[in-house]
Formats: sequence, C-alpha cells, structure tokens
Amino acid sequence: MSELFESPYRVPFDGSFRMARASTSPPEDTERKKDLKQRLADAVSELDSLQSTMYAQDRYALLLVFQAMDAAGKDGTIRAVLTGVNPAGCQVFSFKQPSSLELDHDFLWRSVCALPERGRIGVFNRSYYEEVLVVRVNPELLASQRLPHVPEGNALWAERLESIRDHERHLARNGTVVLKFFLNVSREEQRQRFLSRLKEDHKQWKFSAADLRERVNWDDYMHAYEEALNETSRAWAPWYAIPADDKHFMRTTVAEIIVAHLRSLDIDYPEIAESDRQRIAELQGLLK
Amino acid sequence: MSELFESPYRVPFDGSFRMARASTSPPEDTERKKDLKQRLADAVSELDSLQSTMYAQDRYALLLVFQAMDAAGKDGTIRAVLTGVNPAGCQVFSFKQPSSLELDHDFLWRSVCALPERGRIGVFNRSYYEEVLVVRVNPELLASQRLPHVPEGNALWAERLESIRDHERHLARNGTVVLKFFLNVSREEQRQRFLSRLKEDHKQWKFSAADLRERVNWDDYMHAYEEALNETSRAWAPWYAIPADDKHFMRTTVAEIIVAHLRSLDIDYPEIAESDRQRIAELQGLLK
Repeated sequence: MSELFESPYRVPFDGSFRMARASTSPPEDTERKKDLKQRLADAVSELDSLQSTMYAQDRYALLLVFQAMDAAGKDGTIRAVLTGVNPAGCQVFSFKQPSSLELDHDFLWRSVCALPERGRIGVFNRSYYEEVLVVRVNPELLASQRLPHVPEGNALWAERLESIRDHERHLARNGTVVLKFFLNVSREEQRQRFLSRLKEDHKQWKFSAADLRERVNWDDYMHAYEEALNETSRAWAPWYAIPADDKHFMRTTVAEIIVAHLRSLDIDYPEIAESDRQRIAELQGLLK
Repeated sequence: MSELFESPYRVPFDGSFRMARASTSPPEDTERKKDLKQRLADAVSELDSLQSTMYAQDRYALLLVFQAMDAAGKDGTIRAVLTGVNPAGCQVFSFKQPSSLELDHDFLWRSVCALPERGRIGVFNRSYYEEVLVVRVNPELLASQRLPHVPEGNALWAERLESIRDHERHLARNGTVVLKFFLNVSREEQRQRFLSRLKEDHKQWKFSAADLRERVNWDDYMHAYEEALNETSRAWAPWYAIPADDKHFMRTTVAEIIVAHLRSLDIDYPEIAESDRQRIAELQGLLK
C-alpha cells in the first residue's frame, strides 16, 4: 500500500466529506496557466519514468479511476496526464452502457477483466462507480440487470458500496495501487461548457440530449457522489475531489497527486544478484 | 440467496468443522450401488430441467466449486453429475498452474473472468482456493506471484480467506448461487487409487510423480483445508465435505445437494403479461 499523500483535495476516510463545502475552483493564489503547464509537463515526464521502473520491477500495478459529471473534463484530463507515458505501459478503458454479455455478470465483472497487469497503468474513464451513481439516480436501469432480489431502500446501495470497498482492498493488498479522482465541476461551469459545445462545430459531436436530462438530476447526483466518496475513500484506495472549473489547475493537480503516490512506493529496478553480475560480465565478453 | 439446505455434510458456519471428525466413508445404512445410480440419474435429469428454467428466467447463475486431494474423484464426479445437462448451459473450467498473464493479476482475477453468466452453471475443477491450499503448503510458490508486500506468518492466509469471503458474498448478492464441495478421501483410499493408476494401462496418464510429493504433505493439507472451510463456509456460499471413499455415494450426494439448493430458489419460467398473451394469440393466427 502506498504511503499516504497529503493533499487538501483528498477525501477523508471518516465519512466527513461534504459536497457543499468542496471547492470547484482553484485557490486564489494559483499560478498562471503557463506555470501550471510547465508543472504538468514535469509531472508527466516523471510519470513516464516511474512507469518504466514499475514495469522492470513487475510488482505494482496502478489503477486510476475517473468519475465526474458531464463536461467536467475527464477525457481532457486523461489525455493531458497520460499522453507522454509509454502507451505500451498504459491502458485506458471507457465504460459505456453495459453490453448484454456484461449484464449477464455481477456489476464488478467487466471492470475486473479490464484491470491493469503488474507493471502497468490502467485508467478507467467511468467505472463500476456508475453502479452507485447513474444507476442510483435512475433506478429504472436496475431492471436490465436482472437481479434475482433487490434489497429495499438504501440497502442495495450500501451493499454495492461494501462490495466496492472489499474489492479495492483486495486489489490493494495484491499490489494494485488504486487512486480515484472526482473532477468536481460547478453547475454554472457545466452550463458554459455545454453552451460552448453547442456553438462550436468541432465540439457538437460531444453533446447529447441525454446530458441535459442528467443535468436536471444534479442534486441527486451530488448526493450519490457524496455518499460514494465517503463510503469508499480509504487509505488503500483514496478519492480526490479535484476542483474542475479550471482545466489547467485540474490537470496539473491530478498529475502531481499520481506522481507523489508512486514516489512514495518502493519502486526501483530489480537488484541484480552478485552471481548474475558475473554472468552478465561474461556475456559482455561473448558479445564480440 | 438460496434457502439453506440441511445436510449432515454441510460445513457449519461457525468455524466448528474438524477434519479429524469428518467422515471419508458413507454411513453404514447406505443403499446398494444400483439404487444410488438410479438416484443419481434422477437428480441429473432434474438438474437439466432446472437449468433450462434458470436459462429462461435469466436471473440466477450457479457456481460449483470442487476441491480435493488428488484421486479423490473430482473429474469423475463432475462428469457424472453434469453429463446429461445441456452443455450450452454448462461451462467447466479446470484451473492448472497459473499462466504468466494470470500471475500478472491478483489471485482472484482468472476465476472472475471465467464466472458463469446468468442462467448458466459454471463448474470450477480446482479454483481460487488453491491459493490458500497448495500455495499455503508450498509457500515457495508465492515468489512467482510477485507481490510487493507479503504479510508475515498467517496474516497472508487470513487476508486471502477474507478476500474470498467478500468476493463470494458479492457474487451471491448479485445472483450467483455458490456451492462448494470438498471431496474428502482418506489417505488409505488415495493410496489404493494411486496403485490402481500405476497398474492399469489406461489410467497411467493420470499419475504424476508430483502427486506423490503432495501426499507427503498430507497433514499440512488437512490443516489448510480445515481452516479454509471454516473461514469460508457461510450461508451465502456453503461448503460440503463429502465422504469420497465410495464414488457412487459421493456422486449421488453431490448431485442431490445441488438439486435441493436449486429447488429452494424461486426458479420459474418468466410470467407472460396479459397483453403479451393476446399478442401471442395474434401471432399464432398469423402463422398459417
């Protein structure tokens, strides 16, 4: 398990996170865009280097989970933070509506099959958390899951959150570092971004009428997020609620948190035993 | 979750199972072989029928886990109990030594990917329980798993058993009925069966020198089994310790336990709504 990285955006592990108090905008003393971009570039470069070492060491995997309301900037953040890391060591999965094969399994199944191997970074653009977010806000989606029994009231969500907590603890114990990012955009900023999508030709493809429907459920989503973050932010799989109204601040902050976590692990190239060193010297002699 | 099926072979849920007191031979008043075979045939036939209904209902899946010492009769029991069930609704996975891809994931991963879909029966011939049995008895196998941190002493096995318990509870909640069978063969009966393998031409392929090595560790295995069964036999995923010295008794007992569990579920063909009935009548009229 990685050492705890202190950040003002880490969701505490005691259930005390309140969405209403979580900031959607950067602190006032935030640096200028140019400086943030430089810091992002430095972090990405270090992330690439750390991933190379992870690959050589072949013990840890890193799982990054991104969740957010529409237009908060998941796609852009993943692109900004992971472009520059060797794609051979990085796998991004975007989870859309589950397929019929996926619905024939429990709700964790499809993401388990997509977990990163040791030495690699796996990125989940949306994830099994949708099962306690979009499904909770739109419970009619449960019908397609064909559960034999659906517990009444909040019990279903409590059970699902427990399953997720157990699952992430299991992953962490077995060498997968799990870091989760909630990109916290304000309702007003989302409105501006939707308007911009509708106005600009090359952004219109990103807009769908369904986005507007979900916007109506904003308060229900905030409640579902608050409970999900409180119930599953733990030392072995912390959540970070990142202010998302400023994209540059968000991207840099995410990248630096990931790097800080990896730095705190005992990631290093495998040690070469003395006997192997001698053999390597012999092999060098043979390579004429 | 299925109703509890009472059987003298069910491992209690309170940790009171003792291997030394578990019978390896059938009770004295067991019926003759011919009668056992008839009961087995009846159970298999009912199992096929129940699986068809499960498939139509499309809510439950059934996972059968088989674990045992070598030559206890896993392969024969799976063949006897599942032959006669529609293979389209039944998938058997035999878990051998993990591949390098599998070792790059947590120890549950490969079996999760092989879980049965709703409406189907999945059979695990060996399973993730090997991780607290063969690996516990031969801890040098851990090296190939490349865990970043291995807890000291018994903590690793306690963690793994907890992961298994959590995982099976998650499956049960989400519609997979989990039934687990430990085929309990005596050391003397294993000796006889190994001798028979060595003597008969068409059985020799089944024998490997490694089997004899594991026989030396008999007591360690019994201890590992006892703890695994106690720590993971729960209402949502019970273990059955089936006397395995008599193959006919073992097969019939396993089949009847499975059938009894499925009978206790609310398995039925989906109800047809009144509006659909009218539509079906119209369609019948159109089929001229």
